[in-house]
Order: sequence, then C-alpha cells, then structure tokens
Amino acid sequence: MRAAILTVGSEITTGRIADTNAQWVSGRLLGIGITTGLMLSVDDVGEDIAAALRTALSWGELVWVTGGMGPTADDITVSTLAGALGLSMVEDPGTASRVKEWYSRRGTPPSRESLRQAQVPAGARVFANPVGSAPGLIVEAGGRTVVMLPGVPAEMKALAEGFILPALAGRGIPTETRIFKMAGVPESVVDARVRDVWKGLGPGETLALQIESGEVFLRAKVSGPDGARAAARMGELEAALRARLGPDLYATGDETLEGAVVARLKAMNSTLATAESVTGGMLASRIVAVPGASGVFVGGLVAYGEGEKTRMLGVPGELIASHGAVSPETASAMASAARKVTGADWVVATTGYAGPGGATERGATERGATERGATERDPVGTVYLALEGPGVATVERRWFRGERNTVRTYAVTHALEILRRGLGS
Amino acid sequence: MRAAILTVGSEITTGRIADTNAQWVSGRLLGIGITTGLMLSVDDVGEDIAAALRTALSWGELVWVTGGMGPTADDITVSTLAGALGLSMVEDPGTASRVKEWYSRRGTPPSRESLRQAQVPAGARVFANPVGSAPGLIVEAGGRTVVMLPGVPAEMKALAEGFILPALAGRGIPTETRIFKMAGVPESVVDARVRDVWKGLGPGETLALQIESGEVFLRAKVSGPDGARAAARMGELEAALRARLGPDLYATGDETLEGAVVARLKAMNSTLATAESVTGGMLASRIVAVPGASGVFVGGLVAYGEGEKTRMLGVPGELIASHGAVSPETASAMASAARKVTGADWVVATTGYAGPGGATERGATERGATERGATERDPVGTVYLALEGPGVATVERRWFRGERNTVRTYAVTHALEILRRGLGS
Repeated sequence: MRAAILTVGSEITTGRIADTNAQWVSGRLLGIGITTGLMLSVDDVGEDIAAALRTALSWGELVWVTGGMGPTADDITVSTLAGALGLSMVEDPGTASRVKEWYSRRGTPPSRESLRQAQVPAGARVFANPVGSAPGLIVEAGGRTVVMLPGVPAEMKALAEGFILPALAGRGIPTETRIFKMAGVPESVVDARVRDVWKGLGPGETLALQIESGEVFLRAKVSGPDGARAAARMGELEAALRARLGPDLYATGDETLEGAVVARLKAMNSTLATAESVTGGMLASRIVAVPGASGVFVGGLVAYGEGEKTRMLGVPGELIASHGAVSPETASAMASAARKVTGADWVVATTGYAGPGGATERGATERGATERGATERDPVGTVYLALEGPGVATVERRWFRGERNTVRTYAVTHALEILRRGLGS
Repeated sequence: MRAAILTVGSEITTGRIADTNAQWVSGRLLGIGITTGLMLSVDDVGEDIAAALRTALSWGELVWVTGGMGPTADDITVSTLAGALGLSMVEDPGTASRVKEWYSRRGTPPSRESLRQAQVPAGARVFANPVGSAPGLIVEAGGRTVVMLPGVPAEMKALAEGFILPALAGRGIPTETRIFKMAGVPESVVDARVRDVWKGLGPGETLALQIESGEVFLRAKVSGPDGARAAARMGELEAALRARLGPDLYATGDETLEGAVVARLKAMNSTLATAESVTGGMLASRIVAVPGASGVFVGGLVAYGEGEKTRMLGVPGELIASHGAVSPETASAMASAARKVTGADWVVATTGYAGPGGATERGATERGATERGATERDPVGTVYLALEGPGVATVERRWFRGERNTVRTYAVTHALEILRRGLGS
C-alpha cells in the first residue's frame, strides 16, 4: 500500500509554517509499513483541493488529507473531497449531538457553521475528536482509502493515534523499526563499525545513518510479508549492532541524551551542576527540559563576561591570564570551583570560541570577549569540556565547524556525552 | 505568475525532516509577489520525479525544484527533468572547470560522478554555487520557467538569494511586505487596536496576525500592478500601525527581541545578568545567541534545586520559607542578590511552576521540587518575573497554558520584553 499525503492551508503554501503534519504522518505510516510516494500542499481553494485530490488518488491507494476542516465558511475540504469522490453529504448524528451539547453547555444555540462539521461524506466512518470539534473520517471509494483529519496538530495526532493508524495497521507490509542513538562518536566511525552488518542486509531491510546536533542516529528497518519473521530478524540485527556499538550506544528508543543522564544520576542518587561559558546556559536549559530534572540538577553558573570566571566562580585571575580563558586549565578550574560553590556531586564545565565566524552569521564583523583569544592552535570552534565528580577529573578538547549557535549546540551535546560516560552509563 | 514547488528526497517523504526548503522558498517568492499554488515532495525515483514535474508544470508558470542534484549516482533530478522537458543534456564548461580545479587542488582526478554535475539541460542559465559544487539552473521551456537547485539548505539559499530571486524579481506582481513585532501583549489586544486599519484594507492588501513563542507578529502585504504605489501605500499602513501599536512594537524587520535588548544595552553602555529558576538557563542562552552579546552580558545563575536560591544567590531562607520559592518576594530577592553577586547594571530573575502538567508531557506523574508548592492561586504555569536596574525594581506575574517547555519558552519571551520596557526602548 502506497500513500499520498495532502495538506490544506495557506499557512503552508505562504511559507508561514513548515509542513510538520505531513512529516509526522509519513513517519507514522512508515512505522506501520506504508510508504509515502507523494506529499502535496495547497491553499484552501475549492478547485485546488479537488485537483490535488485527483493527483493524490492517482498516486496512492491511501490518501491522507489534513486541514481545512474547521467550523468556518472557508473550511471546505470535506465537501470538496466528497464532491470529487462522487459522494453526497449526510449528517452524522453523533457529531451533530456533540456539537449541540457543547453549545447548550454554554447556553447558546449552535451556529450554522458549527453544525457544518457534522456533515460527512455518505458511507464515511466517523471518529469523535477527543480534543476538538471536527471529527476524523475514513472514506472508502473507488478502491481507494481516503483519510480526512483536521489540521490542528494536537487534534490530528490524537485522532491518528487513537483511531486512524490502528484502523490501517493491518494494511501495510509488517515493519519493524528501531533507532540506535549515539553521541560523541564520529559518523564515519559508526559507519566503519557496522559495515559488515550493512553488507549482510537482505531485501526489505535498511540501515540509515543520520547526524543531528552532534548526535549520530542509526535507523534500522525490517519489513516483509511475515510479521513474526520481521520481528525475529530485527532481534538479530539489534544484537549484531549492540555488539559493534557497545557503550557508545546511549538509547534505542525515545530516550534523549539528557534524559539518559538525568535517569542515571537519579539511579545513583547523585546531584549535578553546570559551569558554562561558551554554551551560555544552553547546557543547563537542556537538562532542565527533562521532567523530573529538579531531583538531580542543583543549578548552574553562566560565567560569560571577562572577569566573571573569577568573580562568580573564584577561578584565580592569574590562572586565566597565564593559560587563557579558553584552555584545559580554565575549564578544569571552572568545574572544581563550581563544585565547591554548589556542593553538587558532579559538575560539567564549558569554555570555548563560538564565533561569529560562519559566513551566514549576522554581525560577522563583531568579535566579543570570548573570541579575542582565538589562535591558530585554538581557532573559532574550539571548545574545552571539563568533568569533575567523585574521584573523576577530566578535560577534553573538541573542535566544531559551523556558525555560532551550531558550535554551542554541538558543545552541549558533547558535554552531556562526556558526563554520561563519566557516570559509567 | 503562480509557482509550484517540488522538493526531491527520501528524507522528506519518509518524515525524517520537515520540508523547510519549500517553506523558505514560498515565503521568499511571496516577497517578490509570486504566489505558490502547489507544493509537492517525492522520493529520488526517476518516474516519480518526472510525474511530479508534469503535475507541477500544469499548476504554475514557475516550477521551483530543489534536491537530488548531488554528485552521487542516485541524484538524477536534473537529467530526469531535462528528459521530461524534452531537452538534451550538454556540458557546462564553467562548472566542469570548477569541478576539475577542486579535485586538482586535492591532487586527484575528478570522479565520473563529480563531473555529472557539469551536465545541464541545453539552454539552461547556469549559476555557480558559492558554497558547494552543484550549480543552480534556470531553464525556460514551453512557456514555463523551471528553477533547479541543490537540496542542501545553505547551498539552496545562497543560490536563491544571489541569483534566482533577483532574476525572477520583475516577474511577480510588485509586492511590499513588512512585519511588525511585539511581545508581552495579547493577540486579541493587537487585533482590537488595528481593527480599523484591517477594515480599511483595499484589494491586494492583507494583514495577518501570528503568535510565536509568546510573541505577536503582524504581517502586512500590499501588492498591485504599480510598484511605486504599493510602496507608498505600505508607508501609509506602517504609519497607521505604528500609531496604534506604539511602544509595544519592538521591531519591523529581522531584529529579534533578544537582539533589540542587546542593542539597547550596548547603546546605553550597560551590562546585564540573569538569575533563573523556572527557565533553567534558557534566558541566558537566548541572550548569548546574539552575536556580540559578550559586550553586555556578564553572566547568569541558574538556582534550580531547593536551597540553591539561598546557597548560590544568598536569598534568605526565611524569605523563601514565608513567601514560597514561587512568589513575587522571592523573584525580587533573586534579582537583587544576582545584581550584588555579578555587579551587573540590570538583572532579570525568573521563578515559577513549569509542570509536568500538560497531557502530552512524558513523565507527567513526576513532580519536581519547583512544582511542590503549586496552589490554586498559583497553579502550574504561574511565573514571576523580576527586573532590577538603576532606580528600577519591578516584579510581574504571568500565567501560561501548556506543557513544561512551552511555559519556559513563554517565560523567557516575557522576561525579555519586561527588560526591553525597563530599558525604555
């Protein structure tokens, strides 16, 4: 079964937002073994919707439409699609009574527009929206399956997860997918280590490498006519990949790097603090984004301006003067000092040159205090990351190519990975 | 002139990334008066590319294609498009010599694959890629204009800004666009204030309201056959909007809220520090993201764990015990204390309850230290923002709906806006 995804709305065709609905849908369809052959986006204009639907129907046995299903007069997707499919519109009693009830609770009669949401193509399966008013629809017509969902992402996802994807689950090729997550190890190293697994892949099996903010994700997929065999084969692949990736692997699912670090600290009943220069609060922010981080994260210091490493952290001015603000010595001293100030068990410290430096950077001629010392040995993009904990004191040097915020983002990822390894996870 | 945008690549159709290239292109085309009627995405499969091109050609006088133009064997977009347009392929001498030069500098002969990038449709205008190897192409065929660009965003944008958009600039309807940026003022208030301007809009004129991370953007567009008249009319609209939006307006262009704050501090020759609890480093990080921030940003403290507001900042434990960690008194005390610790002229402090609380939050049953005190009066989503500076000491309460990171993001935006107003900008 191949799919075509059609998203309707001027917010997409005018470039106001990226089409994250189509991205989400294609990813989820792939998870149940349905490949997306075509994605289409058009404005809320009747003839454009109808023409796009005709194109979509010619591409895939499944056509998944989102958007243009609200209560206002310009939300014409459902009636337009019904017309294009040669179906009349009928009232769905369930939706009509939900709309009336919603209004009666507010003491007003339902508007004509709101009742339009109860009009559905004849023969449609109707699914009540758990977080909004527009229902989800599945229409079978002319050998094609057409899904129609509202465009509000939370409503679309709730309907898709609750009803549509389960209803379609048996229609795709049985597919197993798994993601293997690493950080701090170069893509080329991962590539070389799993080369033999790659070469041993059979039909319907893929491995794909992806880099994201300094992390390396390896995505495995096995699909075939037999679900049990696909699951067994994925088990074999996972064992082979785990053997080759070893402790570089920090997760095989939804877990994030910062989530893995917080979980490990919690299990160890240990606390963490941060001392940041080049990353400017981004490291603390990424840790705090993990629910429950407050159980282990004590706090952080952002010693950004000149003199602050001394004033806020108590790093001796002479140490900075003799080794430089961007040096292994300063990074280590920041970690030690922050450990004293906060009393945390573990501290990660960052210092480096983020630029401006990249060609795409606005204000590229400005150079702030942290850039003044950049040298041929330590050019822009150089970062020192120090870790201090019970019986542990290390410092590592990294160099990242890219503009200011790329360097900062990569530095945060590598700092988290150094912490994860230091924690023995 | 109407456009169809075709993006090629399995990273889009499998949902690995959102199609931000199509978003960017449609926004830029709108800026030169060209409306996008259709967006299409397909995998790097010859027959799919050809079929999508035929669909695109039937929709728009301009077809803009990105992706599938690299040096590898599966990058077949250009030859496929040439075939579909009935054009033969010829070698472009300029591209061929650039490829050969690139390889000779590395001491190796160019591979056959790399030389494929010099093969272009006969009659194409060829534009050298300033940041990569695949050139940009404009082909005129059968009354249609087809643009072909590589899919790497930096390469696509460099070619588009440098050559393609200027070449197309005269072809659209003359259009003026302007964005009016505000923060800390509700969308409904902006809506009411500009209602009369909205009602006075003529044909070809639009105003659109958009909310983004707690900011409110008002986008104005004037298009018409006469460029000078459109510019004059935009001038009138800008004057009318400025009169109604007053000091709530922080920028009318690319400037960000944090950029406006940094620029204002620089102009005042003043320094800034942050004291964060609920925002956990995100406020500092957003300020540090501005190039040149080191000239004004001294540093920050993230006092996240229980007791850290006392230990790191010296906020009296009794004050916290009697008023609560999330209270106007604690927010003010954090700002005062951080001003003493850092010596900065201005300090912004944040404290609040971010949740978990939203239904979509993973780990929703966990409640960290900052959530323990949430009450009916101060439910999850409540944030206190304090500002202290020369002769200024204020504290404001806000409440934001949403999951953990939404609350934090909104809190950062509002903290920056309170700072901007405090600076008198």
